[in-house]
Amino acid sequence: MFKKLSISILAFACISVYSQKRVRELGISPGVLQPGKQNSITDVAGVLVGHKTLIKGDGVRTGVTAILPHNGNVFQQKVPAAIFVGNGFGKLAGSTQVMELGNLETPIVFTNTLNVSTGISALVNYTLQQKGNEKVQSVNAVVGETNDGWLNDIRGRHIQEQDVLDAIKQAGSSVMEGNVGAGTGTVCFGYKGGIGTSSRKLPQSLGGYTVGVLVQTNYGGVLQVDGVPVGKELKKFAFSNQLLNNVDGSCMIIIATDAPLDSRNLERLAARTMIGLGRTGGIASHGSGEYAIAFSTDLGTRVQHQPENPVANVPNLHNDYTSQLFMAAIEATEEAVLNSLTMATTMKGYQEHQIEALSLDKLQELLRKYNRIR
Amino acid sequence: MFKKLSISILAFACISVYSQKRVRELGISPGVLQPGKQNSITDVAGVLVGHKTLIKGDGVRTGVTAILPHNGNVFQQKVPAAIFVGNGFGKLAGSTQVMELGNLETPIVFTNTLNVSTGISALVNYTLQQKGNEKVQSVNAVVGETNDGWLNDIRGRHIQEQDVLDAIKQAGSSVMEGNVGAGTGTVCFGYKGGIGTSSRKLPQSLGGYTVGVLVQTNYGGVLQVDGVPVGKELKKFAFSNQLLNNVDGSCMIIIATDAPLDSRNLERLAARTMIGLGRTGGIASHGSGEYAIAFSTDLGTRVQHQPENPVANVPNLHNDYTSQLFMAAIEATEEAVLNSLTMATTMKGYQEHQIEALSLDKLQELLRKYNRIR
Amino acid sequence: MFKKLSISILAFACISVYSQKRVRELGISPGVLQPGKQNSITDVAGVLVGHKTLIKGDGVRTGVTAILPHNGNVFQQKVPAAIFVGNGFGKLAGSTQVMELGNLETPIVFTNTLNVSTGISALVNYTLQQKGNEKVQSVNAVVGETNDGWLNDIRGRHIQEQDVLDAIKQAGSSVMEGNVGAGTGTVCFGYKGGIGTSSRKLPQSLGGYTVGVLVQTNYGGVLQVDGVPVGKELKKFAFSNQLLNNVDGSCMIIIATDAPLDSRNLERLAARTMIGLGRTGGIASHGSGEYAIAFSTDLGTRVQHQPENPVANVPNLHNDYTSQLFMAAIEATEEAVLNSLTMATTMKGYQEHQIEALSLDKLQELLRKYNRIR
Amino acid sequence: MFKKLSISILAFACISVYSQKRVRELGISPGVLQPGKQNSITDVAGVLVGHKTLIKGDGVRTGVTAILPHNGNVFQQKVPAAIFVGNGFGKLAGSTQVMELGNLETPIVFTNTLNVSTGISALVNYTLQQKGNEKVQSVNAVVGETNDGWLNDIRGRHIQEQDVLDAIKQAGSSVMEGNVGAGTGTVCFGYKGGIGTSSRKLPQSLGGYTVGVLVQTNYGGVLQVDGVPVGKELKKFAFSNQLLNNVDGSCMIIIATDAPLDSRNLERLAARTMIGLGRTGGIASHGSGEYAIAFSTDLGTRVQHQPENPVANVPNLHNDYTSQLFMAAIEATEEAVLNSLTMATTMKGYQEHQIEALSLDKLQELLRKYNRIR
Repeated sequence: MFKKLSISILAFACISVYSQKRVRELGISPGVLQPGKQNSITDVAGVLVGHKTLIKGDGVRTGVTAILPHNGNVFQQKVPAAIFVGNGFGKLAGSTQVMELGNLETPIVFTNTLNVSTGISALVNYTLQQKGNEKVQSVNAVVGETNDGWLNDIRGRHIQEQDVLDAIKQAGSSVMEGNVGAGTGTVCFGYKGGIGTSSRKLPQSLGGYTVGVLVQTNYGGVLQVDGVPVGKELKKFAFSNQLLNNVDGSCMIIIATDAPLDSRNLERLAARTMIGLGRTGGIASHGSGEYAIAFSTDLGTRVQHQPENPVANVPNLHNDYTSQLFMAAIEATEEAVLNSLTMATTMKGYQEHQIEALSLDKLQELLRKYNRIR
Repeated sequence: MFKKLSISILAFACISVYSQKRVRELGISPGVLQPGKQNSITDVAGVLVGHKTLIKGDGVRTGVTAILPHNGNVFQQKVPAAIFVGNGFGKLAGSTQVMELGNLETPIVFTNTLNVSTGISALVNYTLQQKGNEKVQSVNAVVGETNDGWLNDIRGRHIQEQDVLDAIKQAGSSVMEGNVGAGTGTVCFGYKGGIGTSSRKLPQSLGGYTVGVLVQTNYGGVLQVDGVPVGKELKKFAFSNQLLNNVDGSCMIIIATDAPLDSRNLERLAARTMIGLGRTGGIASHGSGEYAIAFSTDLGTRVQHQPENPVANVPNLHNDYTSQLFMAAIEATEEAVLNSLTMATTMKGYQEHQIEALSLDKLQELLRKYNRIR
Repeated sequence: MFKKLSISILAFACISVYSQKRVRELGISPGVLQPGKQNSITDVAGVLVGHKTLIKGDGVRTGVTAILPHNGNVFQQKVPAAIFVGNGFGKLAGSTQVMELGNLETPIVFTNTLNVSTGISALVNYTLQQKGNEKVQSVNAVVGETNDGWLNDIRGRHIQEQDVLDAIKQAGSSVMEGNVGAGTGTVCFGYKGGIGTSSRKLPQSLGGYTVGVLVQTNYGGVLQVDGVPVGKELKKFAFSNQLLNNVDGSCMIIIATDAPLDSRNLERLAARTMIGLGRTGGIASHGSGEYAIAFSTDLGTRVQHQPENPVANVPNLHNDYTSQLFMAAIEATEEAVLNSLTMATTMKGYQEHQIEALSLDKLQELLRKYNRIR
Repeated sequence: MFKKLSISILAFACISVYSQKRVRELGISPGVLQPGKQNSITDVAGVLVGHKTLIKGDGVRTGVTAILPHNGNVFQQKVPAAIFVGNGFGKLAGSTQVMELGNLETPIVFTNTLNVSTGISALVNYTLQQKGNEKVQSVNAVVGETNDGWLNDIRGRHIQEQDVLDAIKQAGSSVMEGNVGAGTGTVCFGYKGGIGTSSRKLPQSLGGYTVGVLVQTNYGGVLQVDGVPVGKELKKFAFSNQLLNNVDGSCMIIIATDAPLDSRNLERLAARTMIGLGRTGGIASHGSGEYAIAFSTDLGTRVQHQPENPVANVPNLHNDYTSQLFMAAIEATEEAVLNSLTMATTMKGYQEHQIEALSLDKLQELLRKYNRIR
């Protein structure tokens, strides 16, 4: 009986009564810059994203999302990278080495808070077993997390190493959003959050570079959609009922770019995502881990694990040309968060907790009320 | 002849054809929390603000703003403090010691980029000469700046030490906004910026604390007023003409609170101002120094220069109660920036450069168009 | 046959032909302050240390060391803490949250580089299962590592979660040094390194506080023992044969104190350990992760997971009284490193690699030559 | 009468009864690497150092030291740079911009604590007036300090802008040490400190690069000279008389290298100087500002203020080749500190305070006792 019920809940969790849409399909276009072709982090050539979604019984609502900076051997061909800690309540693994050495040597994995160790272990094994890495004895696995413990039986620690490897294996250039992968059980602004992505392509006059962002949204504040005070209107926002516990969660953010940035400027780029979060109404509450990981895919900036020469000539974008990239990162972050919301669907899970998706009908009504769409 | 001309320009600079208003007087109320009585940083009891405005001839458009955490001897009775560097392009003096020791031992002075040394020198002399400081041999002066070189003959370095002392002496609990003090010659989102302030008072159920913010605005991006896309509508925003040089400047931010926070949580509070900036459309461009300085006025947290005992019992707010303060800081930052714009007036200055104030008529029109006001 | 051989190697590994001694037993006393009773990190009341040593066959030479700030529920009764990253080449888990929140909520576990995930997973399970933590959904496990891949089959990832739990369970106030726990397979200055500990007790006139240090030594440089140029004399030092690969490794350091320090001053205390490392001849080479984790055991500074009141009165040592603690941390770090060397014994391991212990005979000869002992 | 007395004191201050020697002339050679030709920071080609010494009456004992990364227009041809804050009690100006932008755009000036503003003002004027800088409106002056208030009438703030300009103008490749420039009135380990310099030249097999260090020494601890416990033997060390006030002061450190390092690796290089300080017995006491500023002189790494192209190909040394530079920086820091001591002479100054130079006779006696020299 119970089993049957849980199946029907699962069915409910997966099938939405209304169709999901990306926020741009609703008629709005946050910011002033143009998105790339797919409006996705994978508009940055070479970047791949894969998900493994775990929805089991009535309690397991979690998953894994893997982001690969390129489809080669990332350990041997590291990419320049940086991490910005917006709010360090969180268990991001691998941060100090990325900061110190300025590069990334594994795919990035996102999952739930209590399965970070699973992510690390899987990435270590993945790297040790990759061809060419037979002598590798040290691997800096980068694994981020948010806490999906409201919808997911997080204490059950349900992610297995194989799930992580599956996410990596399935990585491709088409990115699913909403209740998938590491976003399966997350909650954002009191609505169902999840995975979202977006990109910006600078005009040639500003360099022509692409900046792509992917987010795992699980945080609170006062939702604002392209400037429209949605949270306020719907009376659903942080401290609206003067409870403390409805603001926390976290937001994991990845920024990819094909601009030849060194780790110092990648860190600056990563820092701008906090501004993008702010535009959605996020408040980076005490309990919300806000981390941004940025990397460059420019081939000339690759860091060889076994360099041929001690000195390389590395293409490096001058400081003066970074502002437009910062702006692109802010806009793409804002839109990626919004996509994570509008692509998510209502989810019922652990202990019969249910989180509604943001109603696209109500959203459109508000966008109309505030004259954003007709 | 020249003299006369410069006087008439001065007259133009000071008298506005339309009346300035604070943004709340225009009918909007950013955020969800209530402001304090004056909607000013001085709602935090004891905080004082003073300005010295320098408008001379047709080229001098600069000034000094001083913020005092209390009206006593700040060197002997230091306050816990922290600095968050949002973007370190800037010449903020005194940052490393505040970060290391966790306290502030002078008033904070804001001025123009090339007069930071004047600010330091004045604060040093002010402190050396204060009663009780006869044996002091080390003073950590905190001086921030933004670059007013478009409207001001900044290379002339016109600020004198006496101007700094005047600003300190005139400090009171009523705060002038717009083209005053360190905001005299600044430009924000392509419009005349300046000094702005705002505050939030938490309800008793959330602790009852007050958070006040003061800003010196001089930066770019895509102006957004309480969510309304003003910059986009007025076609005046960063890179709108694909030029690089219209985004830079800086934003100096002060956050005061009566909550008993230690320097660690004050740094976290300071970091949230970047989110507030984001809500106004700021992008923290490469050339824009974004610094936030936070301090607590709680008497129990005072740091004695000559402590009676090695160990003090210091009231300390638990981490779990900081989120509401973060939210307050974000809202007050947003509103302080908006006040700096709506309280500023058109200014003509150096080399006949003129910067228009944001037209309140046009702003209200847009607020109406987007259904924020009727 | 092979098995038998490996057993005999094991026997060799464990039995030393000369007796191990702590450095102070050799007649020297680094620094000017007095050690605590046991000259151990456990002189700081309440601190417990446990090891699990894995020596199996001819390839497994690794282990786990666990350090408990107190014997209660560390998650519910967190301790103020800080982490200083001397060189971020390393996989220390949990650093960002300790830095952000200023406290530690699990025991600290040290192990080898590729078993960090095992350490995290074990600490998570340990915490979830502890009485009183039934509702806990987020655990910030702090796990450090050094790379024992020369003596240990590190790619085999031999540590099991039970090994970590065993180390925690066995934790007591008596600390074994040398080839034990996480120090089983480490190499320091080209000699066998391992675990070492030391402490300093300040005289009452300087506060009477105790500072204890524990190290896992696995790094290079030019060994100096209480000022005597041992590495130079023995012609065994970094780049002595102009090879790059003999300097790396890492050093994990823990500093405990009963002084009521907040996280800001704990971070400063942690930073001083780099000076202590310098005194031993360490160079913090590129590949050497140097991390220091400091915490206070003062009862008044405990951070309740579920505080009764939002504001606590927390004892806090004034900045002016920290220098003597810094000095204690430096001296104890130096001596802890030396103990890790003189208490270690020659070890043969993976791929028949053998690392000699620093000969105490030769060391004493050099101490005599340089007139440190008679 | 008074005047005459002050003149005789001055005479005493300048003439030493014993001849000053660099530490290497005493027969010791700290470390294992070879120094450059002059054993000076100016062994790094292009680096220039100038001093202005102010000894006036019986109270003025201060000065200015200027370090130029090259003899061109540093603002137009910036050098990659980084700053490491060992202990942030200090008033170093310009740090945040160097950290954010990764470069240095002015000479570095050292002076006393209360004249930092004078240094900034002079550097700003120097830069504004330099040919080619006619349109410059923003200058990030880097000015460090230590507190010479025991021997110098520091509250008198005697440094004038012209003194700073004089130090810059007199800059050359021969570096005076001891009681000169910014080291005129400093105290180190209870003895007369001052300016010291040293260098290391790596063998070709390790890259052939040069690392040069210059220090302004004004700090405490337990003096150790090439491992010999001088402070302990002479019973003159921190807390030896259980007073707090004999440990503070500061140490300003500059590291120059011709290796093509980016700002990230320059920061790592700078961090290693703390290890060098540790080798001299420094403890980085609470009140001692320990700052290290590193820059590269490699021509290919120059950062153009007005770049021809947005992207430059910048030579960059791979992480794997930095350890030998770290080692060089540590050794050169240790020796530079020792040179600052052995090149200083006894100084009498403000309020008849007198600080003895470290007696070279006693030092040699101790070096003999501990078998470092014959």
